[in-house]
Amino acid sequence: MKPILWTSTRTSGTIVHQMAAASGLDLDIRFISLRKGEHRTPDYLAINPKGEVAAIQLPDAGVTITEIPAMALWLAEAAPQSGLLPADPIGRAKGMEWLAWCHFRLANTFSLAFQAKRLVGGDEAAAAALRATAVTRAREALAFADAQLAKQASGTLLGTARVSAPDIFLAALLGFAGFLGVATDDLPHLRALGAKVAAVPAIAAALAREQEIG
Amino acid sequence: MKPILWTSTRTSGTIVHQMAAASGLDLDIRFISLRKGEHRTPDYLAINPKGEVAAIQLPDAGVTITEIPAMALWLAEAAPQSGLLPADPIGRAKGMEWLAWCHFRLANTFSLAFQAKRLVGGDEAAAAALRATAVTRAREALAFADAQLAKQASGTLLGTARVSAPDIFLAALLGFAGFLGVATDDLPHLRALGAKVAAVPAIAAALAREQEIG
Repeated sequence: MKPILWTSTRTSGTIVHQMAAASGLDLDIRFISLRKGEHRTPDYLAINPKGEVAAIQLPDAGVTITEIPAMALWLAEAAPQSGLLPADPIGRAKGMEWLAWCHFRLANTFSLAFQAKRLVGGDEAAAAALRATAVTRAREALAFADAQLAKQASGTLLGTARVSAPDIFLAALLGFAGFLGVATDDLPHLRALGAKVAAVPAIAAALAREQEIG
Repeated sequence: MKPILWTSTRTSGTIVHQMAAASGLDLDIRFISLRKGEHRTPDYLAINPKGEVAAIQLPDAGVTITEIPAMALWLAEAAPQSGLLPADPIGRAKGMEWLAWCHFRLANTFSLAFQAKRLVGGDEAAAAALRATAVTRAREALAFADAQLAKQASGTLLGTARVSAPDIFLAALLGFAGFLGVATDDLPHLRALGAKVAAVPAIAAALAREQEIG
């Protein structure tokens, strides 16, 4: 059986969907609706006990892989020609460094902003203060990434000609930054990376499919 | 030149120090003092622009690796006999899943608690509410890990006889949970893992060295 990518539109699942598209692997892509609670059904929880998307189910091995850096690593190793991660150990570690950074520093800071009210127990003023801190930190993190990109003639995080898994992750987070009101107009290297990722034909096709589903 | 592990006692640097010890690799381990600002000197920032510990500097390659999951991946590949991560792609992806989970879910939730006051702009009541949310989430995450460990006869996250990099990460976070006032007495599988990790001779020696430095 084909590996199955469980994902959902309008969620961070798009990041893994784009990486899967860039891998060129023949996956069975299944969209579920969080709004309808399809991530909380007993069937889905048997596949992914965390009740989240994305998840890559490997039916033949009886294993499900979750967490974006781990799914990226699996995709990169299953599709070594895709350029999702470099093949050499140092390059791969640098790729994982960026994946972990996107996950821990940036995605995480975005969560603070999105969940601010819940995190502080409902108080509006406290939520606004937390959101402001998160926006400031997200902005600092994006500026750091822009400065690192500026050092690469390739315009990609790892200096590779093709976009890698960390490039896809960062470009998607750049998109989410808009929803948070984080200004990115003055981060040209980051915006160029976003355009570069969106122009990869397989990724453009994956994004079009998400738009269709809505 | 030997790879250099830059770390600091009483920080998350201990996690990478323990992984490095378990790797059996011959690293040059250098402790710096955050209190004295040694992570903010121009010399250190040239090595790690993030100004943080831990970092693994590879002088011959002119590269520094940061972020715990990435340093774990590099150590595991440089020391394939160490058991830090499984050698097969699926096992390695599952190992990375746990590393990313520890980093993103658990370490991150701990940061919320430790930084609560700064995050909400100084308001005491809001900080207390944020800290309470973080403690609840940390407790839920530790209970999830305990339940997953309960399914492994080996008592380790990946079902391996030897402790792996994710086991070391999780055990260290269990230690930090105490500082947050998160109860863990009723999580026996997690506590057994903590004891198992601490009993690895190379790790015990690394921890003793940290105690000595203070």
